[in-house]
Amino acid sequence: MTTANWESKLKEFKQYLKKMKSYEEAISLIYWDMRTGAPRKGLASRSEVVGELSAEQFRMSVSDEMGDYLHYFSQPEIYGKLGRIERRIVNEGLRDYERSKKIPPALYQEYVVLTSKSEAAWEDAKHSGDFPGFQPYLEKIVEFNKQFIELWGYEGHKYNTLLDLYEPGMTVAKLDEVFGALREKVVPLLGAIEASSHKPDTSFLKQTFDVEKQKAFSLYILKQMGYDFEAGRLDETVHPFATGLNPGDVRITTRYLKDDVNSALFGTIHEGGHALYEQNLSEELIGTPLCTGTSMGIHESQSRFWENMVGRSRPFWSRYFGDLQRNYPGQFDSVTAEQFYRATNEVKPSLIRIEADELTYNLHIMVRYEIEKGLFSGDIRVADLPEVWNAKYRDYLGIEPSNNGDGVLQDVHWSGGSFGYFPSYALGNMYAAQIANTMRKELGDVDGLIANGELLPIKAWLTEKIYQYGKSLNPTEIITSVTGEELNPEYLVKYLTEKYADIYKL
Amino acid sequence: MTTANWESKLKEFKQYLKKMKSYEEAISLIYWDMRTGAPRKGLASRSEVVGELSAEQFRMSVSDEMGDYLHYFSQPEIYGKLGRIERRIVNEGLRDYERSKKIPPALYQEYVVLTSKSEAAWEDAKHSGDFPGFQPYLEKIVEFNKQFIELWGYEGHKYNTLLDLYEPGMTVAKLDEVFGALREKVVPLLGAIEASSHKPDTSFLKQTFDVEKQKAFSLYILKQMGYDFEAGRLDETVHPFATGLNPGDVRITTRYLKDDVNSALFGTIHEGGHALYEQNLSEELIGTPLCTGTSMGIHESQSRFWENMVGRSRPFWSRYFGDLQRNYPGQFDSVTAEQFYRATNEVKPSLIRIEADELTYNLHIMVRYEIEKGLFSGDIRVADLPEVWNAKYRDYLGIEPSNNGDGVLQDVHWSGGSFGYFPSYALGNMYAAQIANTMRKELGDVDGLIANGELLPIKAWLTEKIYQYGKSLNPTEIITSVTGEELNPEYLVKYLTEKYADIYKL
Repeated sequence: MTTANWESKLKEFKQYLKKMKSYEEAISLIYWDMRTGAPRKGLASRSEVVGELSAEQFRMSVSDEMGDYLHYFSQPEIYGKLGRIERRIVNEGLRDYERSKKIPPALYQEYVVLTSKSEAAWEDAKHSGDFPGFQPYLEKIVEFNKQFIELWGYEGHKYNTLLDLYEPGMTVAKLDEVFGALREKVVPLLGAIEASSHKPDTSFLKQTFDVEKQKAFSLYILKQMGYDFEAGRLDETVHPFATGLNPGDVRITTRYLKDDVNSALFGTIHEGGHALYEQNLSEELIGTPLCTGTSMGIHESQSRFWENMVGRSRPFWSRYFGDLQRNYPGQFDSVTAEQFYRATNEVKPSLIRIEADELTYNLHIMVRYEIEKGLFSGDIRVADLPEVWNAKYRDYLGIEPSNNGDGVLQDVHWSGGSFGYFPSYALGNMYAAQIANTMRKELGDVDGLIANGELLPIKAWLTEKIYQYGKSLNPTEIITSVTGEELNPEYLVKYLTEKYADIYKL
Repeated sequence: MTTANWESKLKEFKQYLKKMKSYEEAISLIYWDMRTGAPRKGLASRSEVVGELSAEQFRMSVSDEMGDYLHYFSQPEIYGKLGRIERRIVNEGLRDYERSKKIPPALYQEYVVLTSKSEAAWEDAKHSGDFPGFQPYLEKIVEFNKQFIELWGYEGHKYNTLLDLYEPGMTVAKLDEVFGALREKVVPLLGAIEASSHKPDTSFLKQTFDVEKQKAFSLYILKQMGYDFEAGRLDETVHPFATGLNPGDVRITTRYLKDDVNSALFGTIHEGGHALYEQNLSEELIGTPLCTGTSMGIHESQSRFWENMVGRSRPFWSRYFGDLQRNYPGQFDSVTAEQFYRATNEVKPSLIRIEADELTYNLHIMVRYEIEKGLFSGDIRVADLPEVWNAKYRDYLGIEPSNNGDGVLQDVHWSGGSFGYFPSYALGNMYAAQIANTMRKELGDVDGLIANGELLPIKAWLTEKIYQYGKSLNPTEIITSVTGEELNPEYLVKYLTEKYADIYKL
């Protein structure tokens, strides 16, 4: 094997990967378009286009050609010649390839058909609150996932295999530990907050806010964060999202509610946090499978850091409340920055995860985590879900839904088979607090920067420490390289305890 | 060969064609997005996505698999079993396949690189008026096209082969005849108009018009035409266009000029005419290569019919001028519908094709047609183009550009190698007048319908006669089946003569 040989083969392999990435980019653009304004009557045909492109992308990912490349480059004498990023491409590639190859195509096809029908069934069931109507679908989906776990194999708890899909390396043992530590503090903290007589006044949030003005303010804050409008755009959708087509085109969406000044704003900051990650991936990752966030948890840490630890902080509102007042003339004249800050941090147990405050959000996740764990250990049956759900909400949040639409049927995830995804949201909160702790040590007075509206050094630090690496470092590598230790829930506990002790005068 | 065999093979073939169509649809959506608001920094990567998808689509179009299908289905014993549409798919497929296979891939690749460089060179040259800077590119492009003509073969005039790419069956002999007949009447008519002392007053068009109001009025007229907003959308671009992604998603764009009430409006009606064609293709064509307009000329007949023969007609303004007045309060108070009608039909020789009026537009096309014909017969050299161009403008329009940017360099077409395209525009005018003549016989009082704002019966008639068939009938079949005769320029001559004799009191 001459040098020229393996180098030209590497070039070919990269070309092959780039082609797959091109299909992905086209598919992502089509999804963005479908959600932002594609005409209704064209959607059936467009779905078939997505089907064709996805099939081609999948075919390439499990082809013999792909297998040959991966086998070739993982031979020790060749692997040894590769650079860091190329090695990671091979490692990630092998893992995904072997995972895909272990599922018989016919079985997978059956599963795809099932989940697509199941999502429609879920929509109806959610609307009517009819769990029994959805139950047979969910039972089948759980069975399929149990089969996948057997085919893929597992270490320790069976659910670990599903967790690993979204947060590589995450396990039940680790989650039990960190969620346990978190719950132990959050539940009593919530009790203290509910008992406090120093509750924030939120009456001034209940006004009508011009949508164009909301949009202008959202754009202004995005700009302050360093979101690059030459590499992205902001649109409006029912469900906000961020999508990184490539680092030069990372689009976000938000939803404007006339009677809510905060929904669109914090939604925009949240998606903006995801977008900063994707816009600042290193150029050397472009066109490779590593050109994206490293895991759902790390991704979520960035959206939540910007939304909560920056956007819902006191220094943020000491800097930007004046701008907010000017943006809505006459609407906040008798409100102070401090009052507004406290109002945006109101804690109130609620039934719906996506409307939850920063503190109770974690409890919503733990309910789902424990249920998923039980489903795959066999301790919980699908038929029992409504009862288990309601009992856990009573336990953790002290409230209970009056119908399944506001309870066990509220999220889309399970209908699409996304088990193992929910923990990412709470992991994001923990990672974010841990990263913020290091940031304060290294950047100095972070609160001072925020209070001066100097958000760009924060973005630059995150780019240097996290964003640039994309998937070329895994989540454990990221969190240990940035903070010097593995995931540790104490930083989130400390952050939440201090923040709410101050706001609620506990 | 059993029945089951050919039928299952036909199913496979249709699946193959549908996949190709899916790639096309994805590419069209990407182009739409690039023009309507894709972030600048993502465009380089997006171009590579287009490159990958186009390459795959092209690969499929010239593959052995495609060849095998076409060969199989064109065997008489199999062909005889096919339906009308399937036969047409095979015929069209064979023609395109053989055309593509005749060009050596390396030669084509070289040509693609040349035209992409050439378009950039043209942009610069147009800006500075520097024809010699662009000349070497154009010479090479002409040479390539001469080579293609030799490889493809030709009957009669060499230029026929290029005309056939845009207007199947069109020849120099036919164009010489119809353009000759048209020129013979248009040139003296233009002279009479210029000599007329009854010129329309256009002073009231020179005002400032609110862009949001322009948009509202454009949307209103589109709705009147029967443009289906559940199967399309209107956006804003520098160069207006229509793109049919599938019949359920046909998008159009327009450009709003603050000081021009007509530009966006007639642009919208024009693109709306293209869109009505694409929205009303028969469902049985979806997913096949026949699911598009049959030729550039027939497509243009529809945009021009709606723009000029409906939108610039007296009954149209007798019906809609009141709406226009209400749309721009105070801006047209002292103007009558008749005055507005006359103003929108002002004839004035000008240098720029895309700004030309309905009458002189045809002369702009003839200049280009004669030049293209001369380039491929060998009678005109690229080096002589500026001189030839200016002489022809003097002859036909009585004016002459002071620089090449407003002259021979004004259009993008040649820089991309699109020779044979220009005649479509004038063919569109001729087809439109001929079709309108039949419409009047069959639908009765068309002017009365327009004057009542009953545009939907007109759309329905065009759907029944033209739109539904897409490419399943060729342009000659369409025009003869609709009007009972082949292309005949006399209808356009008659229409123009009567219209302007009335407006200019000749």
